[in-house]
Amino acid sequence: MGSDHSRLRTASPADLRAEIRAGRYAKHTAGLGAGVLQANLAILPESAALDFMRYCQRNPKPCPLVGVGDTGDPILHTLGRDIDIRTDVPAYNIYRDGKLAESVTDITDLWQDDFVAFALGCSFTFEAALAEAGIPMWHIDNDTTVPMFRSGIDTVPAGPFGGKMVVSMRAIPEDRMDDVYRICTRFPYAHGAPVHAGDPAEIGIRDVGQPQWGDPAPVPPGHVATFWACGVTPQVALENAGLPICITHKPGHMLVTDVPEDAENPVLSAA
Amino acid sequence: MGSDHSRLRTASPADLRAEIRAGRYAKHTAGLGAGVLQANLAILPESAALDFMRYCQRNPKPCPLVGVGDTGDPILHTLGRDIDIRTDVPAYNIYRDGKLAESVTDITDLWQDDFVAFALGCSFTFEAALAEAGIPMWHIDNDTTVPMFRSGIDTVPAGPFGGKMVVSMRAIPEDRMDDVYRICTRFPYAHGAPVHAGDPAEIGIRDVGQPQWGDPAPVPPGHVATFWACGVTPQVALENAGLPICITHKPGHMLVTDVPEDAENPVLSAA
Repeated sequence: MGSDHSRLRTASPADLRAEIRAGRYAKHTAGLGAGVLQANLAILPESAALDFMRYCQRNPKPCPLVGVGDTGDPILHTLGRDIDIRTDVPAYNIYRDGKLAESVTDITDLWQDDFVAFALGCSFTFEAALAEAGIPMWHIDNDTTVPMFRSGIDTVPAGPFGGKMVVSMRAIPEDRMDDVYRICTRFPYAHGAPVHAGDPAEIGIRDVGQPQWGDPAPVPPGHVATFWACGVTPQVALENAGLPICITHKPGHMLVTDVPEDAENPVLSAA
Repeated sequence: MGSDHSRLRTASPADLRAEIRAGRYAKHTAGLGAGVLQANLAILPESAALDFMRYCQRNPKPCPLVGVGDTGDPILHTLGRDIDIRTDVPAYNIYRDGKLAESVTDITDLWQDDFVAFALGCSFTFEAALAEAGIPMWHIDNDTTVPMFRSGIDTVPAGPFGGKMVVSMRAIPEDRMDDVYRICTRFPYAHGAPVHAGDPAEIGIRDVGQPQWGDPAPVPPGHVATFWACGVTPQVALENAGLPICITHKPGHMLVTDVPEDAENPVLSAA
């Protein structure tokens, strides 16, 4: 890499995307683009797009839709200036028939005239707000990936899309729980309030020490295991659907938009 | 009518829909179904559904999507128990080639296998919350229809859908403006915070005494002309698109759902 994560910490979203587009940055985007919405990515053929959009509408906590491109158009006009979804995300996962086939840093050669790009809000937004309120998060302090679990909560299906809700877990000090709910409710476009707090078994999680994705994190005494709907949910739904081809971001390697993270809604006017 | 508006004031949403389905009530739903979300309705062929859904995603204040049916399925599963969109709305407007062709109270005979039903949040929800906070609204006190205007604000287009934003106007006492913003921000699924307050000319409205829809309402001294994004916007977009056929509710004659109006999101689990 010609440029590194710490150098880009103060870069504007546009400058950051320019570095990514030029192939000079291909790592994760946690802590970058301070103050703007980052987004999960899903690209699929138009034939499945209406059902996928229904799936997002029916499951707004795991799948908060923040932008949808026109069919065949790689430019996401409502999320920022000159966002080309083929080049402006640090890394992509390519799925064929529902299975991960490869990871790449540019999808220009894979783009199809029938592709529709979807951007979905992500947890970086509410984590930044919690950190600002002085609420500690173990995975950040210890530079690991948040633990994620396949819960027993069913999502509402749409067409070929369905499956269980994936949740992320953060251990929160008991006396900060009210703050957590108050703060996260302000971010409906970033998973909103937690879906569960307390006994993991109540949402079908047998061992909170053994996440299916990410790294384990402790739940110390005086802390509450707190679970949020997670953006891996639509990824699992896409795998379940087994489409001939679909493309997502590589986990942690998000689309950095120009939308302020406290915007009332995630739409920049086309002006 | 075998039953009247005042008798139904205390009816549950399910009982109210049963009366409507049986053909015993075909009038407006203002003040009915207390505490639940009411919704604007748009039904169109699947060939235009993806673009319409994009239009709603790009214009969340005038077009807050609260429910989308499966193609050909008249049952809106996520908005309540046994909601049949062909019979459970008091009155419908049928548009052919973008022009109002007729109004009916039942669309069972018009239903097509390729129809997709969309429900969009409506102003009754935030009006109820404002009334509860003791904020007077002239059109309610005087039993008229809120004044609505074609503003100069462009919506973000999607496919054949586009046009200017329609706004509704309520004159609010100056000392209640902060309350109005605070309360309405809580209802993103019902148009959210006002889009403008003050000089109507700033959003392209020449004469605030001459609305294009609804009835005129005064702006008394000490009051601020306050404008909200309005659910007539998608209706105008549908007219502009000139689809061979589309169906909306008749203005004021809404779908009464089972979703509590203060729900974090408008999706009832399919349980």
